[in-house]
Amino acid sequence: MRAMYLERPGKIVEKKIREPSPKEGEVLVRIRSVGVCGSDIHYYQEGRIGKFVVRRPLILGHECSGEVVEVGKKVDDLKVGDRVALEPGIPCRMCEHCKSGRYNLCSKIRFMATPPIDGAFVEYVAHPADFAFKIPRKISFDEAALFEPLAVGLYAAERARIKPTDKVLILGAGPIGLTTLQAVRCMRGVEVSVIDLYEFRLAKAKELGADEVINPKEEDIWKKLSSSFDVVFETAGSAVTVKQTVKLAKEGGRVILVGLPGEDEIALDTKQIVFKELDVLGMHRYANMYPRAVKLTQEGSINLKTLITHRFSFEETEKALKFARDNKDSCIKVIVRI
Amino acid sequence: MRAMYLERPGKIVEKKIREPSPKEGEVLVRIRSVGVCGSDIHYYQEGRIGKFVVRRPLILGHECSGEVVEVGKKVDDLKVGDRVALEPGIPCRMCEHCKSGRYNLCSKIRFMATPPIDGAFVEYVAHPADFAFKIPRKISFDEAALFEPLAVGLYAAERARIKPTDKVLILGAGPIGLTTLQAVRCMRGVEVSVIDLYEFRLAKAKELGADEVINPKEEDIWKKLSSSFDVVFETAGSAVTVKQTVKLAKEGGRVILVGLPGEDEIALDTKQIVFKELDVLGMHRYANMYPRAVKLTQEGSINLKTLITHRFSFEETEKALKFARDNKDSCIKVIVRI
Amino acid sequence: MRAMYLERPGKIVEKKIREPSPKEGEVLVRIRSVGVCGSDIHYYQEGRIGKFVVRRPLILGHECSGEVVEVGKKVDDLKVGDRVALEPGIPCRMCEHCKSGRYNLCSKIRFMATPPIDGAFVEYVAHPADFAFKIPRKISFDEAALFEPLAVGLYAAERARIKPTDKVLILGAGPIGLTTLQAVRCMRGVEVSVIDLYEFRLAKAKELGADEVINPKEEDIWKKLSSSFDVVFETAGSAVTVKQTVKLAKEGGRVILVGLPGEDEIALDTKQIVFKELDVLGMHRYANMYPRAVKLTQEGSINLKTLITHRFSFEETEKALKFARDNKDSCIKVIVRI
Amino acid sequence: MRAMYLERPGKIVEKKIREPSPKEGEVLVRIRSVGVCGSDIHYYQEGRIGKFVVRRPLILGHECSGEVVEVGKKVDDLKVGDRVALEPGIPCRMCEHCKSGRYNLCSKIRFMATPPIDGAFVEYVAHPADFAFKIPRKISFDEAALFEPLAVGLYAAERARIKPTDKVLILGAGPIGLTTLQAVRCMRGVEVSVIDLYEFRLAKAKELGADEVINPKEEDIWKKLSSSFDVVFETAGSAVTVKQTVKLAKEGGRVILVGLPGEDEIALDTKQIVFKELDVLGMHRYANMYPRAVKLTQEGSINLKTLITHRFSFEETEKALKFARDNKDSCIKVIVRI
Repeated sequence: MRAMYLERPGKIVEKKIREPSPKEGEVLVRIRSVGVCGSDIHYYQEGRIGKFVVRRPLILGHECSGEVVEVGKKVDDLKVGDRVALEPGIPCRMCEHCKSGRYNLCSKIRFMATPPIDGAFVEYVAHPADFAFKIPRKISFDEAALFEPLAVGLYAAERARIKPTDKVLILGAGPIGLTTLQAVRCMRGVEVSVIDLYEFRLAKAKELGADEVINPKEEDIWKKLSSSFDVVFETAGSAVTVKQTVKLAKEGGRVILVGLPGEDEIALDTKQIVFKELDVLGMHRYANMYPRAVKLTQEGSINLKTLITHRFSFEETEKALKFARDNKDSCIKVIVRI
Repeated sequence: MRAMYLERPGKIVEKKIREPSPKEGEVLVRIRSVGVCGSDIHYYQEGRIGKFVVRRPLILGHECSGEVVEVGKKVDDLKVGDRVALEPGIPCRMCEHCKSGRYNLCSKIRFMATPPIDGAFVEYVAHPADFAFKIPRKISFDEAALFEPLAVGLYAAERARIKPTDKVLILGAGPIGLTTLQAVRCMRGVEVSVIDLYEFRLAKAKELGADEVINPKEEDIWKKLSSSFDVVFETAGSAVTVKQTVKLAKEGGRVILVGLPGEDEIALDTKQIVFKELDVLGMHRYANMYPRAVKLTQEGSINLKTLITHRFSFEETEKALKFARDNKDSCIKVIVRI
Repeated sequence: MRAMYLERPGKIVEKKIREPSPKEGEVLVRIRSVGVCGSDIHYYQEGRIGKFVVRRPLILGHECSGEVVEVGKKVDDLKVGDRVALEPGIPCRMCEHCKSGRYNLCSKIRFMATPPIDGAFVEYVAHPADFAFKIPRKISFDEAALFEPLAVGLYAAERARIKPTDKVLILGAGPIGLTTLQAVRCMRGVEVSVIDLYEFRLAKAKELGADEVINPKEEDIWKKLSSSFDVVFETAGSAVTVKQTVKLAKEGGRVILVGLPGEDEIALDTKQIVFKELDVLGMHRYANMYPRAVKLTQEGSINLKTLITHRFSFEETEKALKFARDNKDSCIKVIVRI
Repeated sequence: MRAMYLERPGKIVEKKIREPSPKEGEVLVRIRSVGVCGSDIHYYQEGRIGKFVVRRPLILGHECSGEVVEVGKKVDDLKVGDRVALEPGIPCRMCEHCKSGRYNLCSKIRFMATPPIDGAFVEYVAHPADFAFKIPRKISFDEAALFEPLAVGLYAAERARIKPTDKVLILGAGPIGLTTLQAVRCMRGVEVSVIDLYEFRLAKAKELGADEVINPKEEDIWKKLSSSFDVVFETAGSAVTVKQTVKLAKEGGRVILVGLPGEDEIALDTKQIVFKELDVLGMHRYANMYPRAVKLTQEGSINLKTLITHRFSFEETEKALKFARDNKDSCIKVIVRI
């Protein structure tokens, strides 16, 4: 089968490799749609993210969906022909984190497109059946690939323990900011403000139900906003926005750090955390979010279609990566169709 | 009655003032013992803590106990002669925080010795009866005054959701570090390490049940410790220790920020919060902790006696403040007897 | 002013009494709309509910709204002319329950129309300002009176810790069943089935978003339903439905008992609670729910209008009580306009 | 190897069977000590517990410990010679319950000595390594076998969210009552009363730290106790005690149902659950409790030795079952040494 390998930073090469076989408990999936994630771009560009270094050719892509073409032994719930979205991280199922429901913290997790584990820019993937979720009929493969960034947004809302009457601020309106916005909106009675530097993204935020959008290039956020937010989500991963979080949260508020900043250290007013008794909560991917991603999208509470701004063919995988890298002002999510 | 006023930074003056009368729901308390807190020293020295500025003469002291000498109307549970410890912060009882059980976040709270509210270096205080807690017979006035710093430690443990098998690190072995240590120890099955620069304090930590004590002046903590702690308490309020917290916590760990650092900003490795999915939790004083302070001290699970290293008379109040300020290497808690 | 007194079971008498004055922290409210609650009917009929016995003439009615006509001292947030909904239970603000955020459990709570505390079938009521909530412009007095039963539904959903993908069953589609349904619906991604004996009520449930409605007179619920519900709400208060709860909940499920059964004891299959590790949670009124009732109704997520099926004048108060009692098949909520 | 089979109710037969081999991820364990549980006695006597029916010869026993004699592939943490306690229930690791940390609710769990899964009255058992917990040096095989009933007690305390100042009542002082007592005692600042019909058991409760023990044969519990308990544990599994739970809990209290009553239905005063807003929580075995069982026993906070009242040899397995069945007044826990 054909696979797109990151040969070295900045270079994608197509190769022919052997098709995998599904082991016990696995299904073989013909990949159909793969979303381009910021991390894919990062590996493509730099060859590493923090301690994760691409040391040998790696298949990128982890936001994916496809069709079951073969079923391994002891798989009851899926059959050939089923359309599925793949949750890309397979934990060990045996450590303290796995057993206590936080399998995203498993140190042995095998996560697609995180070196040295191969990802989804490939024709076939063998995957544990319990991490393959049936796609309801109304939902396309493209949308289903975006269950992955949606899972991040849903987990962010979960960490935040959103309740009606909460006043919420989302810093950043990229794919994660926009799925977080939609996840938050699934609890009614919430007011949401969104900040971003790109008008295109703010327009999407508005379309997806933001009560207020603010562009710091146009307005002084410190004049416009006060320390009045019950919940602040940081999804931009920049030092500037991380610093803003603790200042804009109110007493007893919660700050959710979703974005991964490049800086080794950020000068933070930690006194605010103490004085205001804040909860500053990090999050690493997600756990147990796919079922609700499916359900919420199916019933129309979440709109993934509008996040998809561009599509490329399998052959254009490298082009897709470059496009997503270079067009943050006009694209939200790029899909590669395998 | 006699009262000790902070006239200006560095100057305590005794004055005669009118004795208060207990209003409905209040008791009049003859103060007996007052603990000297770091905040008292800070106000004495600097005349301010952050936004709280001493603008007119202020009575310091908020860790206090005494005897009921008069009872206001509608007070059922207390009578003249009862020995009581006073919880020093009286909230408005009407705002969202008060009604939802987090009255420590009340913006209208009247907290003793926080300007402009007078404190306890005085002969008599009128106080709401429901914030005056009966002292069990075996417990002295001096110990009961220390229910206040104990409440801080108990609240820190509460915020941390300590569970058996937790590996705990406490940064700082001053009064708050040592009450936190004891609070943590009230949940069995926990391993506790304590770090401090003073051997005297580490010895106390050892006496109070620390499994391991470390002096960074003697040992390289980065050689000795790894990112393996389920819970890290920061009680020293220094930039150095705040920075250590997120590094020493393990995946899924909790960091409790108790100490108030002087720095406006601290360069923090916030990536650690994200990657390891930490909960970094601030705390502002405490709520609902006095009943358990009483109970735990009464049954002998908490030892407050050993924290009291020095005693002064009412006349020596200023001397007590200076002594506590200048002898961190040999004193834990200084008591003024009124 | 005029007041409607329950003179004895089955007899309402109008009397002239002195208008109250607002004390410190209180507002005087000209009552406009009062909803008739099942408990009002019960007191009217029987003169008692459990241990609460009407021993002297009592003003009934506790679901109420009106207009501020006078403002006591130390009231900042309200002014004459403000339209307000009254939360009818005033707790002591001093006991362990009040201080820890569960003021609904306060044993000294003064709850309107619970003997010996008078209720709202009267022209003027003096009420603590912090239990009087401003009504947004779009919401009528009639609707605002129903914030009270809505608060019950919202608290039921809160107790249930509803999450997306939950499969929910509501037993009973009276006023509380229907506010619970709407409260549950405020969390998207939930499937809700409703059971009731009256077609009229089931039609309302359907209108308000129930995915499935079942009438046990028409269908065998044991054929139709299995032990598959994450959450079961019992709002009917009958022995039959209480017994069904634990059978219809799935492993790890939650059962919320909202209705108050008349029976002293109900034969319950408690083995189901053990085997399936259920949480069977009672609830007594609510706490801290009015702000979210206001917000959710204001934004249109909750529809209270459709619950109001009949209206009566102040003079017709007794008629209203009788009508509500006798027409369960055609009325949901009866409003008395004062 | 030798194995003791329940041939039919009331008949244990020794057979020779083939020794198992450890699969990938498993260890082969030479069983040393097995505790006799009430469920073993029940199966021995009746051949069934509820829906679980012994349809073919079954090896009983699930409280067990032993020595690793062979190690399967991909086992890193254990080696030949390690002494281990076996957590007897192996979940599927793939369902919603397993993935969310409540693997005890897994419908596919394979639990030792629950038909048709064989148990521990046998010489060798192959067991997943992550469900085999190393026994600290100071702890004997006999004690380690009792980690199992201890896990039940620890989970009961976990479900109860015990906090200092809680007033706790334990109904029943059999093995589970006594491990629950010890688990509760691991949180300091708690007062515990224990009720049982046997003086022998009450004496053990007293020895293990109960503040108060009550024998209903000697004293009228309704005269002695009021509805004042924050937490009530039902461990006796009798209709009488289940009925007492909701009456003895206070407002806002928690009732933990641990024992499995024989009755199909129990007449319960469910009004109490509603009025007092109780949490009535069932529990099915436990999850994630072995690590804390090991830790708490190791540090001496839990005393399992005193629970062991009688020991039998492997050959005497049937005698052990009969003895435990017939001597509730003088025995707590019977151990069979394999």
